[in-house]
Amino acid sequence: MNTKTVIPSVAKLAVSEVDMANAIRALAMDAVQKASSGHPGMPMGMADVATVLFNRFITLDPSQPEWPDRDRFVLSAGHGSMLQYALHFLLGYEDMPVEELQRFRQLGSRTAGHPEYGHARGIETTTGPLGQGIATAVGMALAERMLAARFGAELVDHYTYVIAGDGCLQEGISHEAIDLAGHLRLDRLIVFWDDNSISIDGPTSLSTSTDQAARFAAAGWHVQRIDGHDMEAVADAIEKARRAEQPSLIACRTTIGKGAPNLGGSEKTHGAPLGDVEIAATRKNIRWAHAPFQIPDEILRSWRAAADRGRAARVAWESKLATSPRRQEFESAVAGELPDAVFEDLDAFRKEHFEKATKVATRKASELALAVINAATELTVGGSADLTHSNLTITNGMERIAPSEFSGRYIHYGIREHGMAAAMNGIARHGGFIPYGGTFLCFADYARGAMRLSALMGQRVIYVMTHDSIGLGEDGPTHQPIEHLAMLRATPNLNVFRPADIIETAECWELALGEKKRPSVLVLSRQNLPMLRTIVPEGNRSARGAYLMRESVGRRDVTLIATGSEVEIARAAADLLHDQHKVRAALVSMPCWELFEEQDENYRAEVLGKAPRIAIEAAARHGWDRWIGESGVFVGMTGFGASAPAADLYRHFGISAEAIAEAALAIIQKD
Amino acid sequence: MNTKTVIPSVAKLAVSEVDMANAIRALAMDAVQKASSGHPGMPMGMADVATVLFNRFITLDPSQPEWPDRDRFVLSAGHGSMLQYALHFLLGYEDMPVEELQRFRQLGSRTAGHPEYGHARGIETTTGPLGQGIATAVGMALAERMLAARFGAELVDHYTYVIAGDGCLQEGISHEAIDLAGHLRLDRLIVFWDDNSISIDGPTSLSTSTDQAARFAAAGWHVQRIDGHDMEAVADAIEKARRAEQPSLIACRTTIGKGAPNLGGSEKTHGAPLGDVEIAATRKNIRWAHAPFQIPDEILRSWRAAADRGRAARVAWESKLATSPRRQEFESAVAGELPDAVFEDLDAFRKEHFEKATKVATRKASELALAVINAATELTVGGSADLTHSNLTITNGMERIAPSEFSGRYIHYGIREHGMAAAMNGIARHGGFIPYGGTFLCFADYARGAMRLSALMGQRVIYVMTHDSIGLGEDGPTHQPIEHLAMLRATPNLNVFRPADIIETAECWELALGEKKRPSVLVLSRQNLPMLRTIVPEGNRSARGAYLMRESVGRRDVTLIATGSEVEIARAAADLLHDQHKVRAALVSMPCWELFEEQDENYRAEVLGKAPRIAIEAAARHGWDRWIGESGVFVGMTGFGASAPAADLYRHFGISAEAIAEAALAIIQKD
Repeated sequence: MNTKTVIPSVAKLAVSEVDMANAIRALAMDAVQKASSGHPGMPMGMADVATVLFNRFITLDPSQPEWPDRDRFVLSAGHGSMLQYALHFLLGYEDMPVEELQRFRQLGSRTAGHPEYGHARGIETTTGPLGQGIATAVGMALAERMLAARFGAELVDHYTYVIAGDGCLQEGISHEAIDLAGHLRLDRLIVFWDDNSISIDGPTSLSTSTDQAARFAAAGWHVQRIDGHDMEAVADAIEKARRAEQPSLIACRTTIGKGAPNLGGSEKTHGAPLGDVEIAATRKNIRWAHAPFQIPDEILRSWRAAADRGRAARVAWESKLATSPRRQEFESAVAGELPDAVFEDLDAFRKEHFEKATKVATRKASELALAVINAATELTVGGSADLTHSNLTITNGMERIAPSEFSGRYIHYGIREHGMAAAMNGIARHGGFIPYGGTFLCFADYARGAMRLSALMGQRVIYVMTHDSIGLGEDGPTHQPIEHLAMLRATPNLNVFRPADIIETAECWELALGEKKRPSVLVLSRQNLPMLRTIVPEGNRSARGAYLMRESVGRRDVTLIATGSEVEIARAAADLLHDQHKVRAALVSMPCWELFEEQDENYRAEVLGKAPRIAIEAAARHGWDRWIGESGVFVGMTGFGASAPAADLYRHFGISAEAIAEAALAIIQKD
Repeated sequence: MNTKTVIPSVAKLAVSEVDMANAIRALAMDAVQKASSGHPGMPMGMADVATVLFNRFITLDPSQPEWPDRDRFVLSAGHGSMLQYALHFLLGYEDMPVEELQRFRQLGSRTAGHPEYGHARGIETTTGPLGQGIATAVGMALAERMLAARFGAELVDHYTYVIAGDGCLQEGISHEAIDLAGHLRLDRLIVFWDDNSISIDGPTSLSTSTDQAARFAAAGWHVQRIDGHDMEAVADAIEKARRAEQPSLIACRTTIGKGAPNLGGSEKTHGAPLGDVEIAATRKNIRWAHAPFQIPDEILRSWRAAADRGRAARVAWESKLATSPRRQEFESAVAGELPDAVFEDLDAFRKEHFEKATKVATRKASELALAVINAATELTVGGSADLTHSNLTITNGMERIAPSEFSGRYIHYGIREHGMAAAMNGIARHGGFIPYGGTFLCFADYARGAMRLSALMGQRVIYVMTHDSIGLGEDGPTHQPIEHLAMLRATPNLNVFRPADIIETAECWELALGEKKRPSVLVLSRQNLPMLRTIVPEGNRSARGAYLMRESVGRRDVTLIATGSEVEIARAAADLLHDQHKVRAALVSMPCWELFEEQDENYRAEVLGKAPRIAIEAAARHGWDRWIGESGVFVGMTGFGASAPAADLYRHFGISAEAIAEAALAIIQKD
C-alpha cells in the first residue's frame, strides 16, 4: 500500500556512520554533564538506530522544519531529549546551535529537560510522560492517511517514526494506542523499541515478563527483532517496515549508555550524568578525541548531507504543490482555516432555535450544532470512546474510518479515552483537521494525561464530555463527575465550557472552534434543558465567559451564579424569590470561567455585582470561592453522588430552587 | 502450586443449572425493565458462566460475607450489576431480599447502577469505570498470596474470580494489570472474559482487531477459549485454571442478551431495558413461566445448596483458625490494627529530628519516617511505579515481591501508575496489609481513575507523591504539577497532605496511617527543606490541618498561609517584613486542607485571623480563594512550569520572599 518508492541508500560518506553515531553519544554525555542533570543512557543506546534512521531514511528539511509532507519523528522516550537535540544540531537546524546544547535544561533554552513542542522547531510533540509519544504518533499516522485519502499521494505521503522505551510500553496508554493502530492498519507508523532491559529501578525483569513482540503481533502489528547496534540490520528492518501493510514494531536490542565502558548496560546511566571519570573513559572507548561540544567538520558534513536529502525532497514536493489544482484547498486545510460559513450558519442556528425555544439536552444541542458545523466544513473529524450515541458526536453523512480505509471522518476510538485524547493531539499536531471526541465527563480521569498535553501544547482539540453531573442519574457515583470541573478549570490553557441551553451550546462550539491555540472541553448534560435566552441572540454572549442572563430591576438583592444545567434551577429560584419574597435576584450564567477571568475589571464587577452571591453547580465547591467571596454561599455537591433517577438526586442533594431561595434569604440583608 | 485440593462436583440438583441460569436472566431483565434503566445484556450473556462458577466452585458464605478466606468475586464489567445482585439474592444474602432487586437503581437501595462497595455485603469492590475491576482484582490476588506466605495455606488459600468485558480489556489499565499479574505469576487469579463481540457503538470489530488470547499469553497468562454457554466446558476450564501455575484467562464466547430471541446478540441489549414485548418473547424462549421477580422454590433451593457449600467451608476454616497458634496475629492483621509502637516511635522520631534540626527533602523525611514505621509494623507494604530511589519508598530490610515469591513486602509495580493504584485498592480491600506506593505527583494524572475509587470506597491506601512542584527543576513542565493539588483536594474523601518539613512529614504519615476509612496522598518535595518548628513537638500539630507556625507579636498585619516547600519561603518573607518594614506577619502552615475544614469555626478564625491574607503555593491558585478571601493575594503559578534548576524557576515565577513581602506591603493598611 505504500506508494513511496524512494529506495534509501547509504550516502557516500567521508566518515562512517559509527562516527556519526558517536557524535550523538558525545554530545549527549557532555550536555548532561554540563547541566548536571539529564539522561545520557538512552541517547547513547539508541545513537546507532537514530543515525541509520536520520542518515538514510527520514525525510526532513532543517531549513523548513514545518513543511507539510515531512516525515514525523516522535521521541516517545522523552527523557532521552539529548538524542533529539543532538540530531537537530548535527542536521543543521538553525535554532539549534551548539550553544543551545550547552544550555541544556537551563531557563529559557530551547533544550528543555524533555522535548517541548514550540521550544525548538522540528519538535513535533511534547513528550516526557511515558507512553504519550507513541499514542500521539498514532494520531499523526492516522491523520497522514486521512489527509492522503483526501489529497492523494502526490501531496501527502510520509512516515511517522517513533522511538519508545520500556516505560512507554509498560504504560496503559500504549495498549490503547497499539490496539487502535493495529486495528486501523496504520502502515506508515514505525516504532523503534529501545529494548535495553533497564528501567529506573533496575533490570526490567523486576517488574515485567511480557513478550512485547508477541503482544504487538497480537494487536496486528508487523514485528521484527534486531540488534540495535548492527546498523545494516537497522536499515534492513526499516526497509521491511516501510513495505509492511501494518504498523511496524522494530524491537532493537540495545545497551543503555552504549560506549560507557564501566556504566554501560546499567540503570546508572539512565537519569544522571556519567561523571568526568566515566566520560573520559567513554571518550577513549569510542575513540572520540574531541573536546566537549566539538564535532569535527567531516562528521558535521556527513550529517548535513543527510539534511540535504530532505531539502531536495521538500523542494520537489513544493513544485508538485505549486502545480496542483488543489493547492489552495490543501493549504487552507493544513492551516486549519475554517470557512466563514461555519460561523454564519451557527449564527443562523442560534436564531432559529431561539425562535423555536428548543428544549433539548445540551449533548443533543451539541449534536444539532455539529450537524451545522460538519456540513459547513470538512476540517472537523469526530469520534467517541465507544459512546457515540450517548455523546451524540456523529452527524449525518459522516463515514467511519475503518481498517485501511481513511476517507471517512468519524473515528470509533474504542473504549480508549486516553488513547483517543492522545490520538487527537496527534491529529491536531499533524495538521489538516480539527479533531473532536466524546466520552463521559467522569472519564476525563482516564484521559487526563493526554488532555494536559493538549493544554501544554496549545492544540485545538475539542473534548465533548457529556453526562456531566448527577443529572445522569442511575449510573451512580462512579459515573457522576464531582471534582472534574475543578480539575479541568485548574489546568492552565484549557477552556472549559459548560453551556446552559442550546444557544449557549452553539456559542461555546463557536468559541472552541475559534481557539486555534487552546483546547476546549464542552461539558454537556444528559438531561433536557429549556432554552433560556429572552432576547434574540446577537453576537456571542458566552464569549465573555459569564454574563447577566437576567438583571434584577431597580436593585439587586442577591446574585445567583450558575453554569450548565443549574442555570435553569437558579432561574426558578430567582422567580421564587421574586414572587414569594419580593427579593430581587440577578441571574448570571457562567459558561466559561477562563474567558470571564480574561475580561476587564469593570465588566467582571458589573456581572458579579455588590450584592451577596450564591453559586450553584452540581459539583464540588472547590474554586467557587473566587466568585462568591467570603460572604457567599455555594449550593452544590459536598461528596460523591448516588444511583437514582436524576430528579430524585437533585432533591436528595439539595440542589433545588427552594434550597437556593432559602440560602438567599439567609444571607441577604432585607431592606 | 495451588494447595487447595477440593474437587468441585455438581451437587445433586432438583433442577438443572440451565434453570438456575435462567433465574439470573429473568431477574436481570425484569429489574432493568422495572427501573427503566440498566444493562440486561451482560447478565443474560454471562448467566451460564456465573451459574457454573457460583454453583460448583466459588467459596462464599452469604451468612458471613466477610470471612477472611472466602473467594473473591469481582464484576469488572460493573454495568452488569444485576448479575451480581441476582446472584446475591439467589444465594440468600440477607441484605439482598427481592425487594432490593425491585428497587434497582433507586435512591437508597443497595442495588446501585454499578456495584458499590459498602452498599451490599459481599460486594468486594466498586466497579463501573471499565478496567478497574480486573486491576483491583490483581491487588486482591497478590494480597492473598502475600498473606498466605505469612500465615500459610491453613489460613489463607482462596481464589479471586473476575468477570471482565470487552471494555475492561480495551482500557489501558488492563494492560498494566495483566502484565503485573503475569509477571508475578498470580496463579489464584482467574478472569472470565465475556467475549460477546459487542460494545456500545456496535460490533467490537468497529474498533478492535486484537487477539486477546494471544495478548494474555504474551503477558504470561494461562489461556483457554470456550463456548460460554456450554456449562461443562465452563466447569472444565475452571478446573484447569485452578490448577494452572499462572493467572488464567478463560475467554468465554457468549451471546449478549442470550435468551432474548430478537435482540440477543445485539448492542441493543447492552444498556437499555428489553421492553415488554421482548421480555415476553424471552420468557417464552427460555421457558420461564414465572412472574417478574418470582423464583420457584426448587430453583431457589438449588441456589441455596450452593451457598451451603460455602458455609461448610467457612465453618471448617473457623475451626482451623480457632486452634491456630497465630490466631491473634492473623486477626489483628486482617483488622488492620497498627501496634502502638508505630505511633510511639513516630513521636520519638519527631523529637529526635527536632533536636537535630534535620534539613532534608520531605521525600527523604518520608523515607526516614517509613524506616520507623516499617520497623514497628509488618502491615505496611510498599512499592513504587519504577521510581523507588526517587520516591524513597523502600526501607532497610524490605524484601521484594517476585514471581511466585510472596514473602517480601516491597512491590516493583513497574511503570504502571494506574495499575499500581488499582492494585493498592485491591490489597486494601483484601485486608491484611496497608499499601503505600510512590510516583511523581504529576503522574497522579495517570492514576486518577483508581485514586478516585480509593476515595469513593474509603480505603486506607497511601499515595507517596514526590517531586511535587517546579521545585523538581530541570525535568520541566511535563513533570511539574500545577493543577494536581486542586484536582486532589477537590476529590471528596481524600486527605491531601503537603508537609513543610521533617516534623510535619512524620505527623502526616501518622495521620495517614490512622485514617482507616480514607485514602491519603503525601505530597513531598524533591528539594531539601529546613526543619521549621520552634518548639518541641508535642502531639500532632498537623492533625488540625493548619496551624499558626509563628504568631505575630502584639498585632497581626498580615497572615501568610503556605504549604510544603513554600512555608520556608513564607517564613523568610515574614522575617523580611519584620526586619525591613516593621510589618508583623503571622505564618500559617496548612499541610492538609481537608482536616482544617473539619475544625470548628473558632479555631479556623483564630488561625486565619482578620488581617489581610496571602497564600503561597507553587501551584495553581484554584481553590485558594476559600482561605484568602476577596482582599487576599495568591503567590504561586499562573501557567505551566519550565525546565531549569529549581532556584532559577522560583525566581523566574516570582515565588520568593521578596515577592511575598511586596505583595504584603501592597495589601496591608499601614498604621
